[in-house]
Formats: sequence, structure tokens, C-alpha cells
Amino acid sequence: MESKEVKLLGLWVSPVVRRVEWALKVKGVEYEYIEEDIYNKSNLLLELNPVHKKVPVLVHDGKAIAESLVILEYVDETWKQNPLLPQDPYQRALARFWAKFCDQQVLRIAWNALCSEGEEKQTYIEQCKEALEKMEEEVFKGKQILGEDEGSNIGYLDIAAGWITHWLPVYEEVGSIQILDPLQFPATAAWINRFLNHSVIKDNLPPRDKMPAYCHKRSQEFLNEKREARK
Amino acid sequence: MESKEVKLLGLWVSPVVRRVEWALKVKGVEYEYIEEDIYNKSNLLLELNPVHKKVPVLVHDGKAIAESLVILEYVDETWKQNPLLPQDPYQRALARFWAKFCDQQVLRIAWNALCSEGEEKQTYIEQCKEALEKMEEEVFKGKQILGEDEGSNIGYLDIAAGWITHWLPVYEEVGSIQILDPLQFPATAAWINRFLNHSVIKDNLPPRDKMPAYCHKRSQEFLNEKREARK
Repeated sequence: MESKEVKLLGLWVSPVVRRVEWALKVKGVEYEYIEEDIYNKSNLLLELNPVHKKVPVLVHDGKAIAESLVILEYVDETWKQNPLLPQDPYQRALARFWAKFCDQQVLRIAWNALCSEGEEKQTYIEQCKEALEKMEEEVFKGKQILGEDEGSNIGYLDIAAGWITHWLPVYEEVGSIQILDPLQFPATAAWINRFLNHSVIKDNLPPRDKMPAYCHKRSQEFLNEKREARK
Repeated sequence: MESKEVKLLGLWVSPVVRRVEWALKVKGVEYEYIEEDIYNKSNLLLELNPVHKKVPVLVHDGKAIAESLVILEYVDETWKQNPLLPQDPYQRALARFWAKFCDQQVLRIAWNALCSEGEEKQTYIEQCKEALEKMEEEVFKGKQILGEDEGSNIGYLDIAAGWITHWLPVYEEVGSIQILDPLQFPATAAWINRFLNHSVIKDNLPPRDKMPAYCHKRSQEFLNEKREARK
């Protein structure tokens, strides 16, 4: 397994890029990381992901794969050590179901809350809380995720939901919103603590102090686009 | 493999339900089909899919699985005969990538076009055509899908994209829109022909004559909701 054969096109602050890095680290796969400038996309990115023109893109032996959850499956199927998905088909289905739910109902909605205002913003905040309530009950109180036992390992669903631990607080700060009240979501809060202290995760997070400025800039750009479209 | 152990909660006209039926038929798995009334959801549905309250739900040995693409993976992992996904991890990644693309950029956008009006509708139509152009080039001209050879089998990506063959023409008719011009998309048109003549598919399609009335009713409901929200 030579380091040269695996490349990752990323963006330091992207939660969906970071989840690919976590998966590669869990597997012990060495890779070359190539930082992209999303305001001035490289020819390499446009060539490797012509459909979405977005990071992450994983390149393995010259073959490019896009979409972070698709990449996680690829990584798990290609490097068998330290499996990310459970072995049982039903448990695999649950992990995939909740990963998709977390992307669509939490991550996307939280970002929308950050990029909106007034009544629309409030609606997104409520939707996001409702989705997190479901994850609190069905995921974070369960056995699908990194547990307290020594033998418990980080897996696909931890990695997919991992952005909650480090990005959601930034969105809350930048958007002056509160979504994740630890008193309301104790199981989620306990998982966040376990996740952030995991050896693979704690050294592989974007610098917290640089994130608010970036998130503020990006969310304002989206908000301004929306205001323009409404005119 | 007893027929009693597999149940499918569905809706006759739903393309995402039908894809689960196709997968089960390809595998030769017998199942009990339970029709749902989406205007009056059964307690069974609410109990089995409390998160989304939507069909399809596959129940296998009492365990419920929701989300059609997640179900396809489950079916493929549980019944190994006639594999739906390719064996090679990279080919699997491509199939998953395009299945997701087809759901988000074609199916969802075509439905949005049907449930909108004026400039918004035109924007959706253009977006849908652009997405289909990409699929024409990258999917339907390629080897990812049911080919002309006798040995070519129907797989995950055919099943995921299959709604294009029988539902999209109904959306076009009901919405008075044209998206899929066979002259512009010859490879797509040829695949549609092969798909609709496949032994598993041709006897497992909703009755074409009943679909427009249903689609008209549903799309008008969504359109009216949007008009109300705008007031």
C-alpha cells in the first residue's frame, strides 16, 4: 500500500472532506492531501469531478470517486482492516439510513438555518432540533455508534455524523442560534465527548478558532444570493 | 426462503416502491405486498417507519428497513443470487454515485418542475435536461447499465434509474413539458427500450393509463401548498 497511490482533494474546513480523512486514518491508509481553493477551482478538480465540481474527491490508482458517503463505502470495501460498516446487513442498513438522515435532515438544515433569516430561519432551527431529537433517541442512545466500552470502535455512522461535534457549535455561534442543548440531548452530548477524544479524531479537526470567520463569510454569500434572487 | 417472512409496504404508483419490487423479483424473493393509503396512513406504516412515515418499507423477519436505495443494498447483501451491484469497489462506487445523482438531480427536479409554474418551472426543466445530458454521456453510453448483450443483466443502477422509463413520460404529459427528447438523448432512449422489454420489468409496472390522473392530483396539491405559503 504505497502512499503515492491515494490522493484526496479537499478543503480544510469542509466536514464532508474531513469524514473521508477520518475513514482513511481509521484504516491506516496513507494519502496525499491536496487543498483546493473553492473560489478558484483547479483544473484537476474540474477534471476529476466534472459532474459536481466539488470536494472531496478521492483518487486511488488514478480512479476518481466523489460524494463523501460513496467514498466511505469505497474505502471500507477496498481496505478491509478496521471495518467501518457493521457486518450484519440489517445493521448496515440502519447505519446507511441514519447517515443519510443526518446529512439531509440535520447537516443541510443547520446550514440552511445559517443562510437564512426571519421566519424561515426559525423554521429551519425547529426542523433541525426535531431531527436531532430523533437521532438522540434512535442513534445516540443505541449501539450503532462509538460506545463507552474499550472494545468499541469508530465506524461509518460516527464518521458520517461526526460534523455535529465540531461544526454545529460553529454554526450556532456564527448564526446566533441554539440547536444542540446538552440538557435536551444528553446521549448526543456524551457521544460528542467520546468522539472528540478518540485518538483518530482529536488530531484531525480543523482549527476551531479559524472556522467562524470562514463560516460567516460563506453563509453571508449564500444569504446575499438569496436576497438577490428575491428582488 | 419462505414467502411469509418478507413484506413490502408500498403504493402502486410510487417509483421508489417499484424499484424495491424489481430488486426482489430479480432475486426471486417472494414477498407479501401491502398497499398503503398515503392520505390515511396505516398504524403499521407509522410504527415501521416512524421517522419518515413513507413507503417503501421492507420488513424481513420482523425487521423494518426504509429508504429505497438503502433497501436495495440490503436486498443485495441478504440474497446473494443475481447480484445487483458490481463486485469491483470502483464500479460499485460509480453505481452508487449515479443512483444518488439520478434521485437528486433528475427525479426530484422533474417532480419539482411538475409542482411549479412560470419561471421557476422553466428553471427546473432546464436543470433536469442538463442532468439527463450528463447521464446520457456518462451512464447510458457506458457499461454501467443493462446492455444489448444476452449476458447483460439488470442491476442496481438500472433499478435506481428505472423510473425514467415509465414515470418521466407521465410527468411530461401532466406538466405539458418536454424533457426527454429521444433525438437529444439517443443512448438513454435505447436503454429505456431495453429496460422496458426486460422480463422482470415489463410485467411489473403501474398501469400507464391510471398514472396521469394520480400525478395531476398530487402535483396540484403540492402546487397549491406552495401558493398558500407564498401568500
